[in-house]
Amino acid sequence: MAPSTFPPRAARPAGARLVDRTDPLTTTLVRAGGVVVGGTEVIVAAGPCAVENEAQLVRTAMAVKAAGARLLRGGAYKPRTSPYAFQGLKEEGLALLAIAREVTGLPVVTEVMDVRQLPAVLAVADVLQIGSRNMQNFTLLEEVGRLRRPVLFKRGMSATLDEYLLAAEYILKGGNDQVILCERGIRTFEPSTRSTLDLNAVPMLKHRTHLPVIVDPSHGTGHAWMVPALSRAAIAAGADGLLIEVHDDPAAALSDGHQSLTPQAFAELTRSLDAIAVAVGRTSQSAPFPEPLA
Amino acid sequence: MAPSTFPPRAARPAGARLVDRTDPLTTTLVRAGGVVVGGTEVIVAAGPCAVENEAQLVRTAMAVKAAGARLLRGGAYKPRTSPYAFQGLKEEGLALLAIAREVTGLPVVTEVMDVRQLPAVLAVADVLQIGSRNMQNFTLLEEVGRLRRPVLFKRGMSATLDEYLLAAEYILKGGNDQVILCERGIRTFEPSTRSTLDLNAVPMLKHRTHLPVIVDPSHGTGHAWMVPALSRAAIAAGADGLLIEVHDDPAAALSDGHQSLTPQAFAELTRSLDAIAVAVGRTSQSAPFPEPLA
Amino acid sequence: MAPSTFPPRAARPAGARLVDRTDPLTTTLVRAGGVVVGGTEVIVAAGPCAVENEAQLVRTAMAVKAAGARLLRGGAYKPRTSPYAFQGLKEEGLALLAIAREVTGLPVVTEVMDVRQLPAVLAVADVLQIGSRNMQNFTLLEEVGRLRRPVLFKRGMSATLDEYLLAAEYILKGGNDQVILCERGIRTFEPSTRSTLDLNAVPMLKHRTHLPVIVDPSHGTGHAWMVPALSRAAIAAGADGLLIEVHDDPAAALSDGHQSLTPQAFAELTRSLDAIAVAVGRTSQSAPFPEPLA
Amino acid sequence: MAPSTFPPRAARPAGARLVDRTDPLTTTLVRAGGVVVGGTEVIVAAGPCAVENEAQLVRTAMAVKAAGARLLRGGAYKPRTSPYAFQGLKEEGLALLAIAREVTGLPVVTEVMDVRQLPAVLAVADVLQIGSRNMQNFTLLEEVGRLRRPVLFKRGMSATLDEYLLAAEYILKGGNDQVILCERGIRTFEPSTRSTLDLNAVPMLKHRTHLPVIVDPSHGTGHAWMVPALSRAAIAAGADGLLIEVHDDPAAALSDGHQSLTPQAFAELTRSLDAIAVAVGRTSQSAPFPEPLA
Repeated sequence: MAPSTFPPRAARPAGARLVDRTDPLTTTLVRAGGVVVGGTEVIVAAGPCAVENEAQLVRTAMAVKAAGARLLRGGAYKPRTSPYAFQGLKEEGLALLAIAREVTGLPVVTEVMDVRQLPAVLAVADVLQIGSRNMQNFTLLEEVGRLRRPVLFKRGMSATLDEYLLAAEYILKGGNDQVILCERGIRTFEPSTRSTLDLNAVPMLKHRTHLPVIVDPSHGTGHAWMVPALSRAAIAAGADGLLIEVHDDPAAALSDGHQSLTPQAFAELTRSLDAIAVAVGRTSQSAPFPEPLA
Repeated sequence: MAPSTFPPRAARPAGARLVDRTDPLTTTLVRAGGVVVGGTEVIVAAGPCAVENEAQLVRTAMAVKAAGARLLRGGAYKPRTSPYAFQGLKEEGLALLAIAREVTGLPVVTEVMDVRQLPAVLAVADVLQIGSRNMQNFTLLEEVGRLRRPVLFKRGMSATLDEYLLAAEYILKGGNDQVILCERGIRTFEPSTRSTLDLNAVPMLKHRTHLPVIVDPSHGTGHAWMVPALSRAAIAAGADGLLIEVHDDPAAALSDGHQSLTPQAFAELTRSLDAIAVAVGRTSQSAPFPEPLA
Repeated sequence: MAPSTFPPRAARPAGARLVDRTDPLTTTLVRAGGVVVGGTEVIVAAGPCAVENEAQLVRTAMAVKAAGARLLRGGAYKPRTSPYAFQGLKEEGLALLAIAREVTGLPVVTEVMDVRQLPAVLAVADVLQIGSRNMQNFTLLEEVGRLRRPVLFKRGMSATLDEYLLAAEYILKGGNDQVILCERGIRTFEPSTRSTLDLNAVPMLKHRTHLPVIVDPSHGTGHAWMVPALSRAAIAAGADGLLIEVHDDPAAALSDGHQSLTPQAFAELTRSLDAIAVAVGRTSQSAPFPEPLA
Repeated sequence: MAPSTFPPRAARPAGARLVDRTDPLTTTLVRAGGVVVGGTEVIVAAGPCAVENEAQLVRTAMAVKAAGARLLRGGAYKPRTSPYAFQGLKEEGLALLAIAREVTGLPVVTEVMDVRQLPAVLAVADVLQIGSRNMQNFTLLEEVGRLRRPVLFKRGMSATLDEYLLAAEYILKGGNDQVILCERGIRTFEPSTRSTLDLNAVPMLKHRTHLPVIVDPSHGTGHAWMVPALSRAAIAAGADGLLIEVHDDPAAALSDGHQSLTPQAFAELTRSLDAIAVAVGRTSQSAPFPEPLA
């Protein structure tokens, strides 16, 4: 495989960190299955917040694929604020993700919360997700730095961009440069949204680092009806992709239903992204043929 | 003039505030000179942070008009954090704005900080700007509520959207519904930008109120190089327009030079907005013919 | 009257601002009536959020005096988030404050929101209060800078301490050094309290400026039951005084009842302050003799 | 040993969480070595941010003991923002902590970052510290919930108090009620301090939970010179103790030197706490006899 960054590491200026951008144009290409994040195409990862059962997952996975998603996301291990909330299907959820990948061909993104979960997650995940609450779980970062599996690495809820890049540096320092950054909303005083999606972060991160940057408007707003507007805004701001929660019956979801799109709303969203992507010199893949979703 | 809102006030549901959206589609049209904010066209207001002298202002005004700006912004009374910073040209600045309007035909947006400045500002301003620091200067809001002049009303730096709408209500309660809301960045923990531009506010405000919503990416980021990306994002998020600082020699600007675009960069920006506007069902007016700006 | 600061202005280091501390020990003494803020004695200003009627005000004023308050606070002009909330008794409220001062001998602290209110407020107020929302109402600051009346100047809800001191500089620059700073809580992500009282601000402000610093735990927490603990903490942190809301019937208060102490709770609080004050080398004046409050 | 909470769990109201306060007076007593946290005595844990070598640690431990500290804190595993910063002495640091405990008799508080470190840390730690960055490392919380070792559990930098208590619930749910909460500063917009120490949290947490609450003014301010004022404020606000960084040569410290007190400054601080503790009905243990520190 061709080197994913330019210039090669040996040519880095003294003092530069591994995450630092050293030329104005290059973005590191992160390859997961046949999908490339950081290239011309805007990549959408979509799926349920939590894997709940095979029917839900496969139906959702097929629908998001039909609508243009290139990666399937779904949580098997779920970090939940309350110990009394649904904690995910764990190993069983991983097995269902493997089935959904088999059926759809979509590479799978799923979260790992703990080094002890790594063997099981590595058996299934095409991309390891490290969540906001673990952004400074440095021993976990060091472990995934030793791997060569792509990492979708979310910004912490109150992490400055400097702290975020230094945390990513823990992964790159181990030799793994296949890191996708993900802005997912920050903590502010505003109570009407779950978080405040920080789209300033997109051009600022692209300015400072060669790593691709995607945006999660589902957590960033907490309201499904706001996701399309902010998805379009994220692409217009220069994001390399999106991470979107889709559930085939949001009202019945075991977690985060209020911020999950229906498959139909997701298909409408991806269609609306094409023109935005083109307007900023990118492409996107919405449903390529008349699909029977409605 | 036709009523600018629908349904008429008499038909409002009991308990609704005047700012509240009462039907899903209507946006109040704010008319300033021949320009309409809140319609299909995305409106760009541009100009220097502070009016400095006639040559600077007229050159900049002509350049932003040529590039598609529909309103001229420029500060005569400047609220400055330090009492030792340049405080604006005051009445002299207003006179220069009148000249620039005469030369370009662009309606003028300029800030009023104090009720005692109102007579002088009203003699020149097509749109009264009320700045972030005065968002809860309730006696000033009541005064402009009694006028029938349009108001560009900026969100306070740590105002919740509820507080912002209640502050706008002070203006509408007086009988003046010609209010343009403006997101300009909020206070967060992130130090790399001057403020954190909150694009969540765009769909949330559009959801709650019939007033048009524009975005100020110059203050929202504090970095001129970030303004184009976030301008495009704002329009993609559904904003009705932009407020952008342009200076013909940013390095020599008496205030906010680091966040001011050159006329050339501004022209490139407006050109890039057209496709974004179309992608979200709007129009925009960039330079309509090859202009000799460069 | 003896000069209130040392060293005299002429001796200031080049580049120092007027607010800057230039020696480690001196605090500017602010004199209001016979009361001195910034000396050894911890000063408590107390009274209702809003003046409502003569009976309420006089009863409360007598009670807070009996419990050790040295200044009477009460709002006649009230900045309210909603235009539909009680806006204060205005001139009538000022007249009632004059009566309460006559009855109790306590100097009066009351808010001025607008330069046009200054003549009426100056006729009654021993100390002019400038509220958080007006911290950067620079034209108002310039006006009170031209006066020689003491100013109780509250920190803005999201003002950095640098911005706060620069805003105070607007007052001192006009020649009025009789400024009392007041920390009243800042905006954070925490929803369980109205604001987050920032007691870091006390030692940091005392370190940087010679102006006296008091603390408002009523607004800083929004819960009457939290006020005693944070009042004690403020004095332990080095504050020169407190600003506390007291209402003789909090449940019936027209504004901020939930954060107002009863006179009895206030008397218990002031008694508890004595030992804290002594522990940090200060004095305080709680009820000096058995009073019939209970 | 007597039950540490009252009423016994069986008597909890339906719906109450294990962390919830169910009567107004009881505080869970956390016992570490012979030390009790949550009783009448204000407990001070002190020591270096990071264990660096035996001489430094033993000197510091003896000095803090002489000055009244009841627990020795010291980091062997250090979570550091940058991967290029000193990461702690790890197992070697634990061995030095064991020596310092042997010499001084002080029970040891030290951080565990990862479940894999637990066996080594459990061999030495009298109290397991879980740091801010791991407040929502739920798998780690579940592991320490299964133990019967006391836990010093720090609030996350942007955790609401609700989230904090729900995270503590993960530990109690496993059967371990020996949890000490620790406010250590939150993320706000204020740049002059490392964090904003949130003393609102002290009465609010004491109101909601039966767990003892201590305060870390070293991280909460980031400036050694601010630590004494905020330590006194914390005790006055009702905290059950303090966690303070002390280094025998702060200028040479490998981490956080700017916020570390010298042993002499620490001894002055503890002496100043006695009167504050008494003023709020507590006791504290400063140097009980003339010591040769100065």
